[in-house]
Amino acid sequence: MNNIFSDRISDVPKSFIREILKVAVDKEVISFAGGLPNRTLFPVQELRMATTQVFDKYGPDALQYSNSEGLMALREFIRARYKNKFDLDIPVDEILITSGSQQGLDLLGKTFLNEGDDIIIEEPGYLGAIQAFSVYKTRFNPVKIHDQGMDIVALKNVFPGRNPKLIYTVPNFQNPSGISYSDSNRREIAGILESRKLFLIEDDPYGDLRYTGKASLSFKQLIPEQTIMLGSFSKTVVPGFRLGWIVAPAPIFEKLLIAKQASDLHSNQFAQYVLAEYLAMGGFDAHVSKIKSVYNLQREAMLKSISRHFPEQVHVTRPEGGMFLWASLPNNISSMKLFDIAIQNKVAFVPGHPFYIGKKETNTLRLNFSSVDEATIELGIGRLGAALNILLDGTDS
Amino acid sequence: MNNIFSDRISDVPKSFIREILKVAVDKEVISFAGGLPNRTLFPVQELRMATTQVFDKYGPDALQYSNSEGLMALREFIRARYKNKFDLDIPVDEILITSGSQQGLDLLGKTFLNEGDDIIIEEPGYLGAIQAFSVYKTRFNPVKIHDQGMDIVALKNVFPGRNPKLIYTVPNFQNPSGISYSDSNRREIAGILESRKLFLIEDDPYGDLRYTGKASLSFKQLIPEQTIMLGSFSKTVVPGFRLGWIVAPAPIFEKLLIAKQASDLHSNQFAQYVLAEYLAMGGFDAHVSKIKSVYNLQREAMLKSISRHFPEQVHVTRPEGGMFLWASLPNNISSMKLFDIAIQNKVAFVPGHPFYIGKKETNTLRLNFSSVDEATIELGIGRLGAALNILLDGTDS
Repeated sequence: MNNIFSDRISDVPKSFIREILKVAVDKEVISFAGGLPNRTLFPVQELRMATTQVFDKYGPDALQYSNSEGLMALREFIRARYKNKFDLDIPVDEILITSGSQQGLDLLGKTFLNEGDDIIIEEPGYLGAIQAFSVYKTRFNPVKIHDQGMDIVALKNVFPGRNPKLIYTVPNFQNPSGISYSDSNRREIAGILESRKLFLIEDDPYGDLRYTGKASLSFKQLIPEQTIMLGSFSKTVVPGFRLGWIVAPAPIFEKLLIAKQASDLHSNQFAQYVLAEYLAMGGFDAHVSKIKSVYNLQREAMLKSISRHFPEQVHVTRPEGGMFLWASLPNNISSMKLFDIAIQNKVAFVPGHPFYIGKKETNTLRLNFSSVDEATIELGIGRLGAALNILLDGTDS
Repeated sequence: MNNIFSDRISDVPKSFIREILKVAVDKEVISFAGGLPNRTLFPVQELRMATTQVFDKYGPDALQYSNSEGLMALREFIRARYKNKFDLDIPVDEILITSGSQQGLDLLGKTFLNEGDDIIIEEPGYLGAIQAFSVYKTRFNPVKIHDQGMDIVALKNVFPGRNPKLIYTVPNFQNPSGISYSDSNRREIAGILESRKLFLIEDDPYGDLRYTGKASLSFKQLIPEQTIMLGSFSKTVVPGFRLGWIVAPAPIFEKLLIAKQASDLHSNQFAQYVLAEYLAMGGFDAHVSKIKSVYNLQREAMLKSISRHFPEQVHVTRPEGGMFLWASLPNNISSMKLFDIAIQNKVAFVPGHPFYIGKKETNTLRLNFSSVDEATIELGIGRLGAALNILLDGTDS
């Protein structure tokens, strides 16, 4: 049976995270493994009201087939927000509504990647992007990231031998590491790219969730003709609507639109109407502020618990926003081994290797702080600290 | 700029239908061009009630990230319907919820097609399928269809030279032609396929919309291990939810799931809940009956108007269900020429050539009868008849 399938589908890594989540289904397990927003913060009543208004005002219009570009009211909202946030003038004609940001990745793969084409990706990098681009049989060129952004020397080293079409980045509160690119790091990257013929993907699902520090530049301000932006309502409103967007210069937009049409005709029309109605009600900024204050407390709780319970040899990032921390064990200590002990201790996380290209083990792990309350964080980090002590003492002795 | 794009995206035909719809935007133009269900039949009040119940019963659960397989209640409904309709026992594990049936096509392309792989497609065939599979740089082997189904001789003739992985069919009330495969035609096709290593796609968005004649066999009853079924709620409930499904044997399902995950993680969770709640209310069958009675009147009105207004040289199919009729002009008369005259007469349709592989003109055209009321049908077909008389008289004289 196997040889009837496309080569591409055998190359896509199965989501290790899905498997992890299955292990973590035991109610007693405290899970820092998921990447879920906190459901207690969903604006349920507001969305309920918006839904009623959509039925009242639009009825069947909100339920019919529609255009592939997406609902104009949503595209206008996104345009206005970029203007407000970055003083960027994005024409609505360059904003495409997608079925979640994940679809944005798939459409970019469809539009750009021939088999064997090179792409630069952060290491560690977002698993969903690795999966989406693997489908198009791309060749990944991983470039290490550090606390201030991308490793500039490593980035420069890609070019002598390779001719990448795309560079994929999550410059704000990266998934999985939580790090952000400094403005000077962004300027350096822009400087390297601007003389070359490739596009930078600025995937920014967490940009609105900054808890400390000051807002960074967008690559769109630095190299506008070469920047493609991905955005999402999953982290700021709700993920269940599967609504995100791509901003791309006109010649690219036109190709993305063809890809969108071939992929699912258009995004869910009803959810687009409900979301637009919700946004028009004007509570979005206050809602984001509320999410930020809760997540910030959870982030601080996790950092404090870590300082109490983790052995000193474990390095942990201190993200200024987003949903994740990233921990590094001493070299040669496998986070998979830690995972086995942790599960026995009733606590789960994501071992780091799925976020690398072609690795089976690493000394790193991802911890999510957005979906667990403060008391549970202290309890879970305590359990994980105990697991770390078992693992590291066992190794040291 | 152009050579940075993937080869595949240049190969996807731009939707001619989208272009047509732009021409038809003039309010005075009567359009038989679209493929839209009649919006006056949408169960708006029932969906409104279902939505309220979803908020009451499930709240944030209906708004969170979810699994890629789809909502169990929907998959159970689909399973029960196949049991009821065809006495088929489909395990829910083989039912994948998709973001519309169009996504089903994209996932099948992703899962099966390497560049240059052969696929058999009906001629004329569904444009959305041509677009979706073009993305994967397949080689199309078109096989003619006639009033009783697929041309068996033409089908047999594909095999000596080619080794297709997939055969794509819309056996009930086909888009664009409106024809259905007879049971004996289905049996003959199944007989040809069962000794070979390929899969038949039974795309059946219109199967529930039968107005006359008796229900046909499903290929799943004839060659179950080789049949992949696509279904949709777009024609029976609403298209704006973008909800459809794939039924595939377990080894294929597993690959489709990876493809689904890489494409958009999962289908819109909120719409899945609302749809499941609506279906649980029990009015679905009565609703489908109502749609059928209205569409049947419109179908009959169109056939009657055609017999009144079209010249005798024009052959028109007499579909037993679905949404489309298919007209053939005398040989060598271009439906594009008819289109130009028709637009001047304020009536629109889809010329046939986008439904063929690699043709720029044909003598065929598609007429939609689901989205236009009876009085407007008579008016529009009158205008189209006048256009035909101008074109054919001009040619004959």
